[in-house]
Parts: sequence; structure tokens; C-alpha cells
Amino acid sequence: MSELLYEVREAVAVLTLNRPERMNAWTPGLETLLRERFAQAEADPEARAILLTGAGRAFCAGADMDAVAAEDGEGPGSTAAPPAVEGDFAQRYSYLMSGRKPLICAINGGAAGVGFVLPLFADIRLVAEGAKLTTAFARRGFVAEHGSAWLLPRLIGPMNAADLLLSGRTLRGAEAASLGLARALPDAGFAEAAFEVARDLAANCSPRSMAVIKAQLRGAFVQTLAEATRMADVELEKCHGVPDMEEGVAHFLERRPAAFPPLPAEG
Amino acid sequence: MSELLYEVREAVAVLTLNRPERMNAWTPGLETLLRERFAQAEADPEARAILLTGAGRAFCAGADMDAVAAEDGEGPGSTAAPPAVEGDFAQRYSYLMSGRKPLICAINGGAAGVGFVLPLFADIRLVAEGAKLTTAFARRGFVAEHGSAWLLPRLIGPMNAADLLLSGRTLRGAEAASLGLARALPDAGFAEAAFEVARDLAANCSPRSMAVIKAQLRGAFVQTLAEATRMADVELEKCHGVPDMEEGVAHFLERRPAAFPPLPAEG
Amino acid sequence: MSELLYEVREAVAVLTLNRPERMNAWTPGLETLLRERFAQAEADPEARAILLTGAGRAFCAGADMDAVAAEDGEGPGSTAAPPAVEGDFAQRYSYLMSGRKPLICAINGGAAGVGFVLPLFADIRLVAEGAKLTTAFARRGFVAEHGSAWLLPRLIGPMNAADLLLSGRTLRGAEAASLGLARALPDAGFAEAAFEVARDLAANCSPRSMAVIKAQLRGAFVQTLAEATRMADVELEKCHGVPDMEEGVAHFLERRPAAFPPLPAEG
Repeated sequence: MSELLYEVREAVAVLTLNRPERMNAWTPGLETLLRERFAQAEADPEARAILLTGAGRAFCAGADMDAVAAEDGEGPGSTAAPPAVEGDFAQRYSYLMSGRKPLICAINGGAAGVGFVLPLFADIRLVAEGAKLTTAFARRGFVAEHGSAWLLPRLIGPMNAADLLLSGRTLRGAEAASLGLARALPDAGFAEAAFEVARDLAANCSPRSMAVIKAQLRGAFVQTLAEATRMADVELEKCHGVPDMEEGVAHFLERRPAAFPPLPAEG
Repeated sequence: MSELLYEVREAVAVLTLNRPERMNAWTPGLETLLRERFAQAEADPEARAILLTGAGRAFCAGADMDAVAAEDGEGPGSTAAPPAVEGDFAQRYSYLMSGRKPLICAINGGAAGVGFVLPLFADIRLVAEGAKLTTAFARRGFVAEHGSAWLLPRLIGPMNAADLLLSGRTLRGAEAASLGLARALPDAGFAEAAFEVARDLAANCSPRSMAVIKAQLRGAFVQTLAEATRMADVELEKCHGVPDMEEGVAHFLERRPAAFPPLPAEG
Repeated sequence: MSELLYEVREAVAVLTLNRPERMNAWTPGLETLLRERFAQAEADPEARAILLTGAGRAFCAGADMDAVAAEDGEGPGSTAAPPAVEGDFAQRYSYLMSGRKPLICAINGGAAGVGFVLPLFADIRLVAEGAKLTTAFARRGFVAEHGSAWLLPRLIGPMNAADLLLSGRTLRGAEAASLGLARALPDAGFAEAAFEVARDLAANCSPRSMAVIKAQLRGAFVQTLAEATRMADVELEKCHGVPDMEEGVAHFLERRPAAFPPLPAEG
């Protein structure tokens, strides 16, 4: 059985971390598999949304500490050489933000260290109310890894970011939701409810619109308001004549479910 | 009867979208009227705060879809040519951020599409707890219009912005408040309570102070902390000798209502 | 008795504003004392975290209005000349963000004006649920002082910042928490619970990790995601071989309390 399951259901590509006996603890193998399966989902013509979750009780307990101990002090987040790549969305994990399909991360249970950081790169985070989350870094003698010191302040504000990163304290899904870190869903029926969020996007939202909006949101990190408005105007102009806009208005006026065309090729 | 009502009560200029039979759906005519009435309110010596709201059950149901269908595919947000203007606060709707008087948007009921975006340009958003809100764009085949992809992440964080923009899901005023998008007020007595928020600013806050603070907040989007501190120091220096500061301290020490002078001419 | 108390307990440097008979109202003397005691705490080998709080019922009622009135219109926030210093974290109060040890501000009671602004420069804000907070500026004829127009939008979003700065309205600690401005703790036992937050950081988190994470968070204000990721990778690389990382993993695997070494000298 692969350590990262891949299946497409109702136009949702479901990627499942599958080392439940190790609480899906992170390994170099999983890192490679995730990169491959993410690319597969992005390319899969059957998939209109991507759901990342974990098998068993945990989402991801962080770096596999046994592997760490065995690595002679190399450490869990170690990287042989800092990457030469300079793109904001082409870093070790930030490539997860580079896609054209919505990426939903369903934090079904415990998430620590890199298991806490991975979901930060998703468009939408869902968390089980009772799930235990922790950055853990400061309690292990590490630092804020992989862009978490950049993303967290933008997601939940500088104070809450400082609180979670400096303290490494454990918080529950419900508190994570109150901080704006994720949307909380009840523990009972979590997997089904999380799938439904992804299925709704796949069924009812234009794949083309979602791809453009994702690009707009990436751009907004560095644009001025005038630049972002210009991008919106240019993109809106391009909508005219594509079938999504006609279908989007037609199904609304006709009060029927949408039947959007697949995501067109890029460019 | 005008499609956009204008009246000044207790130093508050109240602008009311007034197409209740169409749920205040947006038209080019309304767009022009809003620009004119906003300028009027900014110039009106009787007005110290501006309140934008809707007549009837809805705030604004978005672009008038009949008009859209009639426009031969031109689409609701269409603009003949992207604007040449480059100023952040001189775009098609962002001019609403350029004023010197506080702009409060009272979302009295349903708000969709451009009706969801318009309030983003206000200083303060109030929403009736039961009001239904939706960006709607992705469900219509559109994109994130008019700077919403830039403003929403800054207002409610990148994840909640992605959630609302990618899904086009409908949320209630109460959830909007929990996301930090607006302050929720009970449905019963909403209009009165919203007016009271604007009236308090008009009655108790220095018009000059509010104009300077609005300029500081606009500047803060692009300044460094050092630049913003410098601006605060320079502006504070200018306060000495103007009557607002004397009155502000005097009414406090004398425990009486404030009687601030009108907004002085610019510069 | 000094107007600013200093003591170290359980590796926490506690700085207490101590003019309770004046609700700890701010004076030039206090400003100088805070700068000195903060430097002392940063240099103190016994201190691993810094806690700033107020004696008596209030945290800080703002500028001492009697002093203001006596100052012949100079005003509470007056500064003889705008500073020549350009560093983001070397301004009149922003130096509080420049440290290497976590700074926790415990808002034990009323906070107004500069008493509202001071805590914005702390890493973590704790507030008693019933404490009354207000920016007050617009009601006094002042402007948004000392970088508050820059920090507040980043901490609680532009709308909530505009709301609090334009209106100068009074809010309770519980609402401040719902805005993300601070973590609220019950009024009863507030001092003890706040101390415990600081004590936990001092006892269980690596001083070295916290210093690096604080530098990462400061950097994140102006970095791109790629730059922040690079900084994280470089800092993680430096962790290898320092005792904190070994102890961090060892105490976790051995399920015992951490015993991190003191903060190493800078550089």
C-alpha cells in the first residue's frame, strides 16, 4: 500500500497521507510522493478540486523522530543546501500554492511541526474540532520552518503567529478556528463533511474561474490595489465569450445545477 | 424618486440604494449616482460621517441580471477599457476609500457580487445578523472583481478570502462577523443601530482627526513602520494649536460633550 | 518606590508600571524608565521572558492629562523633533519589538491612548476580560500615534483598525479578544494566569529558538515568501550542532522537562 493514497471521487482528487501506524509522521519519501501526487492531481482531467488529508487518528505528527534520531543530528527539516529557486511559489512546500485547482486540507487529527506547516499552503483549511495542533518548533530547539514565519502572520495576524510559534503550545481545532487559522467541523462525520466542501467546489464552481481567482490571490500578496484592480479588469475582459460566463449566468437564471466545462489549458 | 436617496440627519449623510423592487441590483446608472452622491457628501459642510445602505429587504443583489442578459454578453462588471488611472484610491470603486469623512456601510440585507464588493471599500461595515452574503463570482463563471482579491485577504486573511472567493458560498451576517468582515447587529432595529454608529462618529469625534487617521490608514498599506511612525509624528506636531486638540482635552477634563469645529479645508 | 518595578521570578523579568494612584498615566519619566528596564531585562542572564503589566486597577490610562494641561498645549504625545532614526524597530516605542526575548504584555485593566498603543509592540497581549480599552485619539482631537495606524491594521485587519481608531470607542477585553487583538483571560486570577503564560515560555521553550523566531517574524513584515523561506532554511542549518536542538529532541523522546541552555550571545 502506498504511503500516499490517490483516488478521484466525484471530481475531487483525494490525497491521503497513509502511515497511520506512525501518525503519518513525515519522511523524505512522503515529501517526494506528495510532490508527485499533487502534480498528478493538477494534471488529472477528472479532478476539479484537491483534498489533502490523513489516514487514521492523526493528520501528521511532524517529522518522524526515529528517522531524525537515526540521521545523526541532521534533523527533520534539514535541507542539504538552501534552494537556488527564487520564486515565491516554487519553494520546498510553497509549490502547493502554485496550482490551478483549489487545494483543501482536511486536518482530521493531530498536526505538529511540518504537519502544522503543510496545511498553511492550502487554499482552505478544515480542522476537526478536537484535533490537537502545535508548531512545536521552539520546544524542540528548532526555528519557524518553511515559510511559516511569513504565512502565519498573514493568516492569523502577527500576534497569534508569535503566540503559536514562540510558545509551541498545543491548541484544539476549535481554537484554531477562532484564530481564523481553519474552519472547524465536528469530529463526528469530519471526513464526510470535509469531502463535501471539496465536492461543492468541484460541482458548482467554474474550474476556469477558480484558476484565475487563485492567480489573483497569489498576485495580491505583492501587488498594489491599483495593480490588482487592473488584473481583475483584464481577467474579466477575458471572460467574455468563454462558455463559463454564459453557463454561469444561464444556470442561475434557469435555476438549475451548473455544468461548467473542464479547466482549459493554461495561457 | 431617485435610485439613490441622499439626506443629512444629525450630521450624517445617508446614501440609500433605492431600487427595492429589484433588490437594489446594480446598474451603470447607480454607479454614476453613487459617485456623484459620495462627492456631494464629502463636500457637504453639514455632513461629518457618511452612511451607505439599501432600501427594502436587500442591500444589493449584485449586477442586474436582466440588464446583463440584455447586454449581449457584455457582462455586469464589464468595462469598455481598463482604466488608465494608476492611483490605488482612484479606481472604479476604490475612490470610496479616498475621502476625508468616515464611510460606514450598513449591509441591511442580501449582498451578492458587486453588492458584496462595494462595502469592502468602506471604513466600517455593519451587517444584519441574518443578511445573506456571497461573492458569487466563481458560480457565475466570473473572476474576483474590482480589487476584491486584494482587499479581502487583507480584511479577513488569505484563507477566508480564498474560501469566499473560490466557493461563492452564501454566509450569514453572523458568520461574516466571526470572520472579521463586518460588525454584526441584530436584524431587529438594524437601521437605527447602524445610524447610531455613524451618528456617534459625527457627534463625538473630531472631523479633522478622522480625516488625518483615514489618510494614515491609507498610507499604512504601503509604508514601512518607520515611515508610518514618522507620518504620525508629523501629523501630531500639526495638531498643536488647532482647536480640535484643545477642545478634545477640554471637554474631557470638563466632562461635557465635545463640540469640535467642522472639517477644515484640505492642506 | 520606583514608578516602574523590576523583578525576576522563575526566569521571567516582570516590569510593572507603578503609579496606581494615577492609573499608571504616562509621563516622560515612565517612558525613560521603560526603555531602561527593557534593556536591563534583555541583558539580564536570569531572564528568559519579559512580562509588562500595571499595578492597581489600570494598565495605563494614557498620557497624564494634568501633565498635558500643565505643558502649555504641548500635548501628551508631543515630541520635540521627529526622530532621525529610520529603523522600523528603533522608533520611540517600536524598540520594544527589537528584542531577543519574548515580550508579553498583560493588560490588567484600563488602557487608553498611549496605554492602548504600548501593548501593540509586544509579541503577545493578554487582557483581562473586563478591562476597558480605547484608542481615544479621535475623541481628543489627536491622530493615530506612534505607529498604531500601521500596527493595528496588521494585527486586527484594516476595518477593525479603522473602527477603533476613528471612533475611539471603548471596548472590553472580551471583545478585544474576538477581534484578535489579545488573548482574554478571566478577571479573577488574571495576574497569576498571565504570569503562567510567560513562565511557560521561559521554562519550556529554547531561548535561542525564540530569539531566531522573533527575528523571522520581524523580517516577515517586509520579506517575500521566497526570502522568508530562505531565512528559515539558513537558520535551520545553523541549528545543527547547537545544544538546543539536541536537548529539544532528547527531552521529547525521554518525556522529561526541557533544560535548554541560556540565550547565547548575539551573532
